[in-house]
Amino acid sequence: MKKFKAGLFGLGVVGSGVYKALQQNEKYGISIEKISVKNINKNRELELPNGILTNQADEILNNTDLDIIIELINDPEEAFNIVKKAFEKGKSVVSANKKMVALYHKEILELREKHQVKFFYEGAVCGSVPILRLLDQHFNSDHVKSIKAIANGTCNFILSKMVSENQGYEDALKEAQALGFAELDPYSDVSGEDTRFKLSIMIYHAFGVFVHPNEIPLQGINYLDEYIKDFAQKHHLKIKLIGEAQEVAGEITAKVEPQLVNESHDFYNIENEYNGILVDAEYTGEQFVKGKGAGSFPTALAVLSNLKDSRYNLSIAKILKKHDKSYSNSSAEDIYFIAGFDNSLPIQGLDVLHKEEGYRIAKSQFQQLEELKKDNPNLYWVQLSENIFKEIVNQEALV
Amino acid sequence: MKKFKAGLFGLGVVGSGVYKALQQNEKYGISIEKISVKNINKNRELELPNGILTNQADEILNNTDLDIIIELINDPEEAFNIVKKAFEKGKSVVSANKKMVALYHKEILELREKHQVKFFYEGAVCGSVPILRLLDQHFNSDHVKSIKAIANGTCNFILSKMVSENQGYEDALKEAQALGFAELDPYSDVSGEDTRFKLSIMIYHAFGVFVHPNEIPLQGINYLDEYIKDFAQKHHLKIKLIGEAQEVAGEITAKVEPQLVNESHDFYNIENEYNGILVDAEYTGEQFVKGKGAGSFPTALAVLSNLKDSRYNLSIAKILKKHDKSYSNSSAEDIYFIAGFDNSLPIQGLDVLHKEEGYRIAKSQFQQLEELKKDNPNLYWVQLSENIFKEIVNQEALV
Repeated sequence: MKKFKAGLFGLGVVGSGVYKALQQNEKYGISIEKISVKNINKNRELELPNGILTNQADEILNNTDLDIIIELINDPEEAFNIVKKAFEKGKSVVSANKKMVALYHKEILELREKHQVKFFYEGAVCGSVPILRLLDQHFNSDHVKSIKAIANGTCNFILSKMVSENQGYEDALKEAQALGFAELDPYSDVSGEDTRFKLSIMIYHAFGVFVHPNEIPLQGINYLDEYIKDFAQKHHLKIKLIGEAQEVAGEITAKVEPQLVNESHDFYNIENEYNGILVDAEYTGEQFVKGKGAGSFPTALAVLSNLKDSRYNLSIAKILKKHDKSYSNSSAEDIYFIAGFDNSLPIQGLDVLHKEEGYRIAKSQFQQLEELKKDNPNLYWVQLSENIFKEIVNQEALV
Repeated sequence: MKKFKAGLFGLGVVGSGVYKALQQNEKYGISIEKISVKNINKNRELELPNGILTNQADEILNNTDLDIIIELINDPEEAFNIVKKAFEKGKSVVSANKKMVALYHKEILELREKHQVKFFYEGAVCGSVPILRLLDQHFNSDHVKSIKAIANGTCNFILSKMVSENQGYEDALKEAQALGFAELDPYSDVSGEDTRFKLSIMIYHAFGVFVHPNEIPLQGINYLDEYIKDFAQKHHLKIKLIGEAQEVAGEITAKVEPQLVNESHDFYNIENEYNGILVDAEYTGEQFVKGKGAGSFPTALAVLSNLKDSRYNLSIAKILKKHDKSYSNSSAEDIYFIAGFDNSLPIQGLDVLHKEEGYRIAKSQFQQLEELKKDNPNLYWVQLSENIFKEIVNQEALV
């Protein structure tokens, strides 16, 4: 088989991993002919052939000799422009840009159909965990009822440090930054936005409905304080930032928020940069997959497997499905640990189940908590299951 | 798209699940036209159209109107004959027969190449867990270092009951039989043979080497007694029957044996009929997947997803790879909990690390234990990691 020729956009963490893996392994049969970067004079650890770098995107996009484009830059708008132009030139694309895919999902898939090209983006969601492949090929034959995911390694690292090593939020964040797990501006991670991008992409592959990330209710981990840390430690629980979506009678709901899990939960042992996804489907039942959610080589591997998909012309499940389902951004009542409010003010309208200095446990809808937050800007909440709540009540009764 | 027409062999647990799912769901676009069973007059819970049953295999094999054959009978030799004949008629086959695939793996794949047909068998390994898909499509772009699996729900059920509910082996087996989790003749499950069939299939997809099941060293759970149960309970460990294989410098080794795992291990929370697989690969790192390993609908779903693979002409990773790896049925030294021997006899040649009434903890190779078993027919062993052993030694020192 003749070598497959690729043009690469972006030579950051993932791009370097892809380049190195292809250089080191003849078996892929793929060569990168040209790499588009912002600054061709930047010092890089990679050994690169002379002339492989360019800052002219068109040198790649107009090169008729290339079989495929690998898009691994950060900026979502710029990435979308590259993808559009590549499609117009009849070129297939592999991308790992979660923000671009989440923001332009429908447009991209429609353009893909229009130009009859291929577009794979496994690396955009949960690094090495092949969740889109599983949703497209395995669960597509089933009927997905719900999907829950720990999809952000930065948050998971911070929450691990807070609960297991008793660090404060700010210290845990600083350690994450020092170790390179968190960006200097950690907002996208800790606010839950990053998880929401990934959830929005997964929702389409699980349920066949496009949901813009902004339509998904969101609560991050950037307000958590001592109260929840102490509570989790006391009851041997862990805090996880979870993105979840479910279908009930054709209506999809979704949200991103921190939740408490106990040791019998599959998410309990997911630590640091690991991600995990729990899918519940009619015939399969519950299925759980856990793997590295970030990092140069784990994400590069997702890109490499997509390059093979594209090369061997792997047909994935038809993407533009019939939309017999709708999305609603409301959500059912859940039990919440709620803290961070002004103690002197009573919190109106909540069905309080348990009250302690500094926090309440109450039944509420997500939207109701969002309302309350308007008057209590430090308010935060962490969901807990009815089982965990009952266990805790029983424990307290024994004290 | 015109309906896909299938002929089905076998209407047992999985066959009935496949039939019901296809009946209930237009979306599959697949109709079963004819079903071959041993006894067409048997009372069945299914509502079947008149004339759909036959006891003449050739009625299906010679029917040129059928697009695909679904093979779901028990007997491996009979199943192999069906597959061969179907291939000769140019028909593709989906099967879930682990014993047939394990025993005739190389022959079947060679015949498949010869007749240029398709052959999928996801349901043969770990029920609903799409491990062959992951190995073929995701890990095929990586370099697998090791694979470990809990692949038998019957053993897992018995071991759960023994350790968590303090039942004896015989009682736990009886309960498993009463609940339909174990066959009346449980030998294939509890001896580890069933796990070995599945491991042998996975080895090919992970490493590209055919290993006949009989070449894999094997120790089941059918000799475990009170000593190991007490030991596991005392140290908060669980016993799991694990099939594992690894590659070191081009040499593959494998074995099936019970192992002790602690609560930080991904296998700790796999209970009852659930299966779990841990794959370690160069770029991906560790990846864990857990799901229902048996049952009518979970296994049926694996068959259904394969029918779709076949219909949409999904090309999986090239099967007949270059064999640059070899298999060795030796294995490295491990730490073992060893019991069931005649207490009056010293056990020669073992590097004993710890000695108690009724059991020893010793370093040994699997083969050495097999030798010892010749003179001590009740001898059994359970592997434990160095970490677990050290923890236990520290705990004992504190007492």
